[in-house]
Amino acid sequence: MDTSRRAYTRLSVEERRTQLLAAAIDLFGHRRPEDVSVDDVAAAAGVSRPLVYRYFPGGKEQLYEAALRNSADELRQCFVEPARGELTRRLSNALDRYLAWVDEHDAAYSALLRGGSVAETSRTNAIVDGVRRAAAVEILGHLGAPGPGPRLAMMVRSWIASVEAVSLTWLDEGKQPPAGELRGWLIDHFVALLLVTSTTDEETARVAQAALAQETKGSPAGDLARRVVPLAEAVAHLLPPG
Amino acid sequence: MDTSRRAYTRLSVEERRTQLLAAAIDLFGHRRPEDVSVDDVAAAAGVSRPLVYRYFPGGKEQLYEAALRNSADELRQCFVEPARGELTRRLSNALDRYLAWVDEHDAAYSALLRGGSVAETSRTNAIVDGVRRAAAVEILGHLGAPGPGPRLAMMVRSWIASVEAVSLTWLDEGKQPPAGELRGWLIDHFVALLLVTSTTDEETARVAQAALAQETKGSPAGDLARRVVPLAEAVAHLLPPG
Repeated sequence: MDTSRRAYTRLSVEERRTQLLAAAIDLFGHRRPEDVSVDDVAAAAGVSRPLVYRYFPGGKEQLYEAALRNSADELRQCFVEPARGELTRRLSNALDRYLAWVDEHDAAYSALLRGGSVAETSRTNAIVDGVRRAAAVEILGHLGAPGPGPRLAMMVRSWIASVEAVSLTWLDEGKQPPAGELRGWLIDHFVALLLVTSTTDEETARVAQAALAQETKGSPAGDLARRVVPLAEAVAHLLPPG
Repeated sequence: MDTSRRAYTRLSVEERRTQLLAAAIDLFGHRRPEDVSVDDVAAAAGVSRPLVYRYFPGGKEQLYEAALRNSADELRQCFVEPARGELTRRLSNALDRYLAWVDEHDAAYSALLRGGSVAETSRTNAIVDGVRRAAAVEILGHLGAPGPGPRLAMMVRSWIASVEAVSLTWLDEGKQPPAGELRGWLIDHFVALLLVTSTTDEETARVAQAALAQETKGSPAGDLARRVVPLAEAVAHLLPPG
């Protein structure tokens, strides 16, 4: 309280704005939008309610939208990964960051994906679609297919939708299984999807071939390959003899 | 116009309600919610605007929510399939019905999944979640796992999310590729997901084993198995020698 009092008198306009926004982002990250008020933001920042309105005349709705945009920017950043090493390791790193963000900002993540009751749905949808598009661009970049055909684009889009659905289910289930297991399963899912899509789409086949050639025995793809081999027996009756 | 005039005088209360609802469902199925008015519903049913309000005092919002509920019921029905034949054939039948519904009611499908600007988001979300849960119950029934553990439940939930995302993308892309190809890819996706999940979850392994044992060379799973075999070469370097 002491430090915020002091801050009250000393901050510049830009610093004050940043401070209020940080308080709002923190509150909206951990509580449902309907459980956050302008008074809460004022209290968290150690300032008066009118001061909040001076910086954010739109009040709660404006603060909420700013918090959503900030969340979206952070989620987008999770998928930025240097272009070196096996594809499945790069994706693992991105997913580790993504799931850590979901873990830390559970309320914000749910609000973002389930649609808030405060911000307009169409605007929230546009923000979420921006994250999805950015994630797809990053993944397609790692696949070496910046301008993908419809099948490959659909495959990536479909996997991102699974990541979102699984992350929401994960939050609903009290964050079980542990994030590391979840990440491993999502990587298995990606590799499986890439492989089956490559059986019907030439571009995906080229991309998959190139990506697999870079994988190693010690990579997540190598680990999956060893686990899948024993399944050959269960599908033997589906294959032509010999 | 002649027939609706006649209907105007002759319908019972229940018949009139059904008629107005059918007109609303048809309009909301083919246009965005913001492009439908109570006047449109009245005109489509050949009745006056006040008559619409007599049956639906909540006006457009009430009609829209009734239309959404009707859509949700129909989508739910798509997944109901007799418990005989190979799993992948049953799923194919369900997906054929689902994609035919999406094709015919494109505006309703987008409104349902992207959140309407008319109905409250939280209520729309609850309706959509009901469809997802019902679809999951049907699929888990076909897998012989009515009370699934968390991994198997998550796998099914994740696939349903992909089906939705892919259906929306399909509508955005002018319904390309043809529905049959899309259905085939979604079945491939399901089988792949079932197999990789079975490598880390015992329950899924049991369920997958039982499902695969029922599949035949001529089933979608048999078709996929033949397409996957040539990929062995691309992953050979990931496997232990011998």
